[in-house]
Amino acid sequence: MGTIHTFFVISIIFSCLSGSVDVHFITKRDASLDDRKDCPPVEGQPQPPTRVDTTARLQALRTEMGTADVDVYIIPSEDAHQSEYPPSYDLRRSYISGLSGSAGIAVVTATKAALWTDGRYHLQADDELDCNWILMKDGVEGVPTMTEWIIEQMMNSTTKNVGASPFLLSSSKWKTYEEAFTQEAITMKSVGANDLIDKIWTSGRPEKPKTPINALPLKFAGRSWQDKINDLRSEMTKKHAGAFIVTSLDETAWLFNIRANDILYNPFVVSYAIVEMNQISLYLIDSSTKLSQTPTDEETTETLYEHLNTNQDGTCTGKTGLCVKVLEYNQSGLLTDIETLAETSQSLKVWVTILCNQAIYETIPETQVIQANSKVALIKSMKNSVERAGMQNSHIRDAVALINFMTKLEKEVKEGKKWTEVSAAADLKTYRFDQEYNRGLSFNSISGVGSNGAIIHYSPSNITDKQITTSEMYLLDSGGQYLDGTTDVTRTFHFGTPTEYEKECYTLVLMGHIDLALTKWPRGLYGRDFDAIARHPLWDVGLVYRHGTGHGIGAYLSVHEGPGRISISHAVNPSDEPLDENMFFSDEPGYYEAGKFGIRLETIVMTEIVDTKYHFDATTMLGFKAITLVPYEPHLINFSMLSQRQIDWLNAYHKRVENEVGPKLSGEPLEWMKTRTQQITTSSPASIILPSILLICITSILSLLK
Amino acid sequence: MGTIHTFFVISIIFSCLSGSVDVHFITKRDASLDDRKDCPPVEGQPQPPTRVDTTARLQALRTEMGTADVDVYIIPSEDAHQSEYPPSYDLRRSYISGLSGSAGIAVVTATKAALWTDGRYHLQADDELDCNWILMKDGVEGVPTMTEWIIEQMMNSTTKNVGASPFLLSSSKWKTYEEAFTQEAITMKSVGANDLIDKIWTSGRPEKPKTPINALPLKFAGRSWQDKINDLRSEMTKKHAGAFIVTSLDETAWLFNIRANDILYNPFVVSYAIVEMNQISLYLIDSSTKLSQTPTDEETTETLYEHLNTNQDGTCTGKTGLCVKVLEYNQSGLLTDIETLAETSQSLKVWVTILCNQAIYETIPETQVIQANSKVALIKSMKNSVERAGMQNSHIRDAVALINFMTKLEKEVKEGKKWTEVSAAADLKTYRFDQEYNRGLSFNSISGVGSNGAIIHYSPSNITDKQITTSEMYLLDSGGQYLDGTTDVTRTFHFGTPTEYEKECYTLVLMGHIDLALTKWPRGLYGRDFDAIARHPLWDVGLVYRHGTGHGIGAYLSVHEGPGRISISHAVNPSDEPLDENMFFSDEPGYYEAGKFGIRLETIVMTEIVDTKYHFDATTMLGFKAITLVPYEPHLINFSMLSQRQIDWLNAYHKRVENEVGPKLSGEPLEWMKTRTQQITTSSPASIILPSILLICITSILSLLK
Repeated sequence: MGTIHTFFVISIIFSCLSGSVDVHFITKRDASLDDRKDCPPVEGQPQPPTRVDTTARLQALRTEMGTADVDVYIIPSEDAHQSEYPPSYDLRRSYISGLSGSAGIAVVTATKAALWTDGRYHLQADDELDCNWILMKDGVEGVPTMTEWIIEQMMNSTTKNVGASPFLLSSSKWKTYEEAFTQEAITMKSVGANDLIDKIWTSGRPEKPKTPINALPLKFAGRSWQDKINDLRSEMTKKHAGAFIVTSLDETAWLFNIRANDILYNPFVVSYAIVEMNQISLYLIDSSTKLSQTPTDEETTETLYEHLNTNQDGTCTGKTGLCVKVLEYNQSGLLTDIETLAETSQSLKVWVTILCNQAIYETIPETQVIQANSKVALIKSMKNSVERAGMQNSHIRDAVALINFMTKLEKEVKEGKKWTEVSAAADLKTYRFDQEYNRGLSFNSISGVGSNGAIIHYSPSNITDKQITTSEMYLLDSGGQYLDGTTDVTRTFHFGTPTEYEKECYTLVLMGHIDLALTKWPRGLYGRDFDAIARHPLWDVGLVYRHGTGHGIGAYLSVHEGPGRISISHAVNPSDEPLDENMFFSDEPGYYEAGKFGIRLETIVMTEIVDTKYHFDATTMLGFKAITLVPYEPHLINFSMLSQRQIDWLNAYHKRVENEVGPKLSGEPLEWMKTRTQQITTSSPASIILPSILLICITSILSLLK
Repeated sequence: MGTIHTFFVISIIFSCLSGSVDVHFITKRDASLDDRKDCPPVEGQPQPPTRVDTTARLQALRTEMGTADVDVYIIPSEDAHQSEYPPSYDLRRSYISGLSGSAGIAVVTATKAALWTDGRYHLQADDELDCNWILMKDGVEGVPTMTEWIIEQMMNSTTKNVGASPFLLSSSKWKTYEEAFTQEAITMKSVGANDLIDKIWTSGRPEKPKTPINALPLKFAGRSWQDKINDLRSEMTKKHAGAFIVTSLDETAWLFNIRANDILYNPFVVSYAIVEMNQISLYLIDSSTKLSQTPTDEETTETLYEHLNTNQDGTCTGKTGLCVKVLEYNQSGLLTDIETLAETSQSLKVWVTILCNQAIYETIPETQVIQANSKVALIKSMKNSVERAGMQNSHIRDAVALINFMTKLEKEVKEGKKWTEVSAAADLKTYRFDQEYNRGLSFNSISGVGSNGAIIHYSPSNITDKQITTSEMYLLDSGGQYLDGTTDVTRTFHFGTPTEYEKECYTLVLMGHIDLALTKWPRGLYGRDFDAIARHPLWDVGLVYRHGTGHGIGAYLSVHEGPGRISISHAVNPSDEPLDENMFFSDEPGYYEAGKFGIRLETIVMTEIVDTKYHFDATTMLGFKAITLVPYEPHLINFSMLSQRQIDWLNAYHKRVENEVGPKLSGEPLEWMKTRTQQITTSSPASIILPSILLICITSILSLLK
């Protein structure tokens, strides 16, 4: 699926020099409701059914804003852990704006409401936001940034307070906003623990998450939590840090080898942890119940307290070896503990990550805080050998599920049986559930026919559902959670006869996809440094896709994980890290034509050290190995556009599909695969013409000889 | 020539996790003198003659450090204007360290001295630094950053003061250092106007620069200074700024259409300017003399005071129209004026650039300062139509000079006549001087034979001078200053028979060079976003070059100018801007094998809006047009490695050389050019084999028919 991070924001704020000779300028245009489809609403004409009426919610929020004395209120998508996919309880930005997509930030003033979102959600946002909302399309020329827009709105305001919850914004974002506002005498005003959406979202709100926790057996995790704690403590020693606060949910799940279902599609446990040199504290919701609960996963043999080497009440008294003290999850309790920690030893340094929330950050005295990228995130992303094997195995099982399903779908669509985006996604799910170690999906399948395929992060619903036919392209982006790995694969299909243009676009996307997979680079580079290689073939003909090319992926963790990514971006993310070996990324260029079709090809690839013909000054070269093994669609490829190198890659890939997935297929699915994995022989003019000429020549000579 | 900016710093500080399963880690190694050739010195064995003895200088500096109460002293390369190439008077870092190259930063503690420099100067620094110096090679795995190293040195120090001159460090660097040090209780300590190198560099120091100033006629500048001031004031209005402080020397030269020779190869005037809404102040050294001096450039018809519409004493009394008040250049006078400006109107906002020095920055009250990229730099880099035409014309004249010289050089080298790096560079100079509008060189020519070619920014000297022969590669990177443009071109030659490996390397560099020239990209991207396209062919075989791929270039200004550049980099430069139309960049990949040879191919290219086969959502696509028109070396190219697209580009380029430069050549130089610009026909197997087979076939048939 599309990557986490906002694509580059074009920021040429450079306009109208008076009387300039001939220099070209772009004016930053005024953002307004005029850009919205069917806005303002016309009496008697219904609004699109997908739109959420937010009038009452906005009114309630504005009342609270008055009480809290803020002129502007910022509502980010994230929870207190900066989760990309927060628990349903925490979907505040979706509640206030109506946009159900994962990325976006909402800003409400006394009279206006605006939402910034990236290219994956531009079309979807227009479908879901009602006419109260200005849609700010990140990545489109001339769209102001959030801070620029707020500054503009506050220009003539006598009070200039921009409110936000310190739990929901990362400290780095808080600082960025503060810096942008300070010159304009605008103040970032914390509302403390009293988030204004919490005050108005009182009915119909989902429960706080508290699903059972299962220990992940060592045969899947590859490394015990005790060893991981020791690894982390070595890093803390090097950084002269006496405590490390773990705030991201995939980091607590990974560090302690625990999994739950607190977030849809993400097997996380809502939690915090503080790792000190002589103590480890883990904060869990409903901790006493969870510690002694019988495991709900059949592969888990220990209760949580046994796994964490803790007494049944979560204390460590009398325990030998490492023990995790379990405490009740509670924001203010956590802050008090951090405060006490810092006060007890004023020479103690506390390491927090760039993404830690502002509330935690501001609790630690400035002289004691070390803010730096999370080593947990980095070590986690460099998978150990057990995780690497698990990722490869789970991807093979996942390919089997997808191929079996696609064989049926294609056959029945061609027979004229009715399949829709929704019914296909629902049926595919059951194929994944049948696979060994499956623990559900890794995200809501993106199943898009024709124009719906052009909505980059489209979720089919009964309102938008389209039938799958032989006359339109079909984009299917889906993945599963397995005890031994997380998968995410996109293939694009056409069950009839594609147009030449559709084939050309598919081939251009494939060319970038292969070129990226073939890239070798010197260790130390960021993914953003070579994302262009995937975009290059499309750029050549003027085509562009507005999302990142690759995101990291976890091992039975999140489908999107940092700290590496392959994404050109204007705003360089401070938590980015270079790509190193044994990391897993998606390689997923695409092309989307609004109202017509979407194409995306996504294969998970693993970084590894590669050998090269020459070696420069002991530089280590890295490259990719494909892990997803699902064939491409030969009848959508214009082979004459491919280079020999690209064809060689495709042939080698399809040979691996045959060898590694083939043995687990039989009957029609095996045939379905084989029609796609046939080796392509290059038909250069010489190889076609030469035999014919030789034949004519020999025939002539023979006839003359007769 | 190689680009300004430090190549990516590999920063994986990630080591030795205890008992880790199989994750790969890189340890940040201890930097020490052990990495230096011939260090520590051995009694009786002479040091390399290129090394500068800095023992006495370091001793004097350490005495001053004691007096100034600083534990560490930072000596940057730049002057108060953050010039890449400062006046000789300001070469403090060269003086203290011995490294004559343009890039580097020196740090001296009570017992150690260390110098960081980028890949262009790694070999040269080892040749020039004596054994007092630890050489820190930026871009090499495991080398600590300057701040990391200083933190390590200060670990056990009781006082922790890091001293620096606030005039010589940009405010953004000062802030970065402060932020890195604050957690370690290390203080950045300003020495105010009393730079410690100024105190010890008392004998043998060059004079302060004060060369005559010439007004650049409108037929070369394309836009009057009055119009440029109006353009700038429009930008100031948009940013609500009442004053803009111009601190970069290429910006004052461009803004006021003035040129001088205060810096070798850079036609700049050491100066500051303050542009307000109703007043313009320009600070010049020896201002009263310069205002009335007779122009020294034959194309200049006005004296400076006439050009600036000023009275002869630099005042504006009684003048109508825009007038530039000229004041005497003086650091403390400038600071006082800025202070007064801010105090007089406390609602006035003062715009300074990211690169403005810390002394100026800290003079402006925090509530009044706007720090943002310079609009002058951005407008300057988007050349107007007169400048664009001038750049193209001057590049054609420059090509004529280079081709005429190379014809002679190649002929005489082949005849066995003695030519060396130094004599070639000296002779080439005279060919440039003969061209219309030439005003000298744009930098010290890089003329390197064999192993000297591998020193990326090599300057030949009598000590290192090598003979040019028919058995080694020859790298020539040179350029000129013309009233209508600045040039910078690199070609690599072999006057005998190159090895297959040399040809392969040349061809790989050429492939990246052409691929970058062919790149089309959506407006809004930074050059760093697609630099990888030029490196890709080399990476495929494990080869790497440690410098940026492209730098901006001025029009009769600096050979290196911002704010755009084409350079992968770890540390994203905050003053970077996206590439926009009508900008000029070098396209200069290379490959350098220490001790053997260096290859670089550099062509200046201009950005322009390009048409593409398709158009996506009104996205503007940009591309490059080659401006340098000097042929490549066909006998160094392995044509079978090139794609058809690369061959087509090469053919079209050589056709342009013939059409645009050819008419200005005659005799042997014309022939020299023609042997290189012949169109390449692709000899695919089909086109070779088919005619032969047809011939055999017809012959057989005919003989049978007889």
